[in-house]
Amino acid sequence: MEWTIRQVVNELTSNPIENTVDTLKFGDENNKIKKIAICFMPTYEVIKQAIKQGVNLLICHEGVFFQHDDDQVVESEVGQKKWKLIQSSGIAIYRLHDAIHHEYQPDGIMEGLLHHLDWMDDVEEHKEIATIIQIPKRKLSDVIDYVKHKLNLSTVRYVGDLSMNCSRIAMLVGYRGGGLTAIPAFEVDQVDLVIYGEGPEWETPEYIRDANNQGNRIGAIILGHLESEESGMRYLAKRIEKRFPTIPVEFIATEQCIKWK
Amino acid sequence: MEWTIRQVVNELTSNPIENTVDTLKFGDENNKIKKIAICFMPTYEVIKQAIKQGVNLLICHEGVFFQHDDDQVVESEVGQKKWKLIQSSGIAIYRLHDAIHHEYQPDGIMEGLLHHLDWMDDVEEHKEIATIIQIPKRKLSDVIDYVKHKLNLSTVRYVGDLSMNCSRIAMLVGYRGGGLTAIPAFEVDQVDLVIYGEGPEWETPEYIRDANNQGNRIGAIILGHLESEESGMRYLAKRIEKRFPTIPVEFIATEQCIKWK
Repeated sequence: MEWTIRQVVNELTSNPIENTVDTLKFGDENNKIKKIAICFMPTYEVIKQAIKQGVNLLICHEGVFFQHDDDQVVESEVGQKKWKLIQSSGIAIYRLHDAIHHEYQPDGIMEGLLHHLDWMDDVEEHKEIATIIQIPKRKLSDVIDYVKHKLNLSTVRYVGDLSMNCSRIAMLVGYRGGGLTAIPAFEVDQVDLVIYGEGPEWETPEYIRDANNQGNRIGAIILGHLESEESGMRYLAKRIEKRFPTIPVEFIATEQCIKWK
Repeated sequence: MEWTIRQVVNELTSNPIENTVDTLKFGDENNKIKKIAICFMPTYEVIKQAIKQGVNLLICHEGVFFQHDDDQVVESEVGQKKWKLIQSSGIAIYRLHDAIHHEYQPDGIMEGLLHHLDWMDDVEEHKEIATIIQIPKRKLSDVIDYVKHKLNLSTVRYVGDLSMNCSRIAMLVGYRGGGLTAIPAFEVDQVDLVIYGEGPEWETPEYIRDANNQGNRIGAIILGHLESEESGMRYLAKRIEKRFPTIPVEFIATEQCIKWK
């Protein structure tokens, strides 16, 4: 059976979300699908690789032009070169961001991360923003080593005392590490630890610093945005493969471009 | 000569800024100053230390309650304990954020950082958001080592190729590492490198990744928010000491609470 881009895209979401960034950014939705690629970040290299491999629909999570609202005009020279590459190839690019976070139950990005960490059986509650898990008591140091091993990370950032005990953990993917989203996990859900992608440094980390200096041993592991969300898109690739068994589907991984020295 | 808190605060800013966060958060402005402390981040520990040392005016850069707009109601338990510590001691806390960035010429936080890095003589232009400097050509790797040495940092994050040459650099303190503030430094000011505090990971770092993959060798050093701004408050302490020679003034440093493992 042959599928058009429109048909596949319509299967990925069911309820239209208002003002969503989940739209077909490039390409003709009437085209027949030849090959689908899934990625977290639609970098210049990822797009080039997809084109080279005969992909005509790329499904990405983040925006193409270095900003969340990627329907704005592309003004940078770097963005223009990227735009030309896409246009000249005819590749279609569809963004799946809002629906996978808010329509999928549980959040599809969160689900992928939890599978990758082997923590699906430890879930206590999927809340709207965070998922609360309960694991056997371990030192923060050991939780960090476990997470680094499972996600294949060389370094992570953390806040708190490495010797503190962690058992109740709130997981927050992407940019949910800010105070408004992460602090309630401590105050309301009474977790020991939050594990998040990224967030402003003066909010959650400083709350944790003060809590520790008041005698309340809590902590955070700051994974990085890509590190917290890429496994969710890898998980999506498996779903799509299952849903459309006649279409070739592949996942294109992206290395983190932020390094440590 | 004796000074009141009001008199000192009035000397720190001249033109009132609309909707500013630069207000007296705690304390009675009619009290006579005994001792002033300056800090970047008014943590629980910093406030305790200031009280212990007989300080009755603490001047800070960031908010007391883990959010930029710190005039909002304090809802967290950690915040309430902090509030009680402040109230019971009677210490006055004044925030100097907007004026030091926007009224001081050049930006007082930027000036402190440039002095600390010994780059004041290399300034080409102080722009509204960024300062452009021009240094003798060096590899990114060497610039990172220099910055780490001068700011006494064990690790920094960076984007780009360590062997690239850097000469023209845009400095952006605090949360100015986002795409709207940092990308124009490359596109308009034609810098090789941006050095910033923090910013969303999917913006400037991904722009730099794509630029490199298009053959344009540019990079970023991500210092951390505190690391990029604390020297500006240290510099302010020296100004205040000079302006009020009869008042005891001290700077209280804050260690970064975000660690690496």
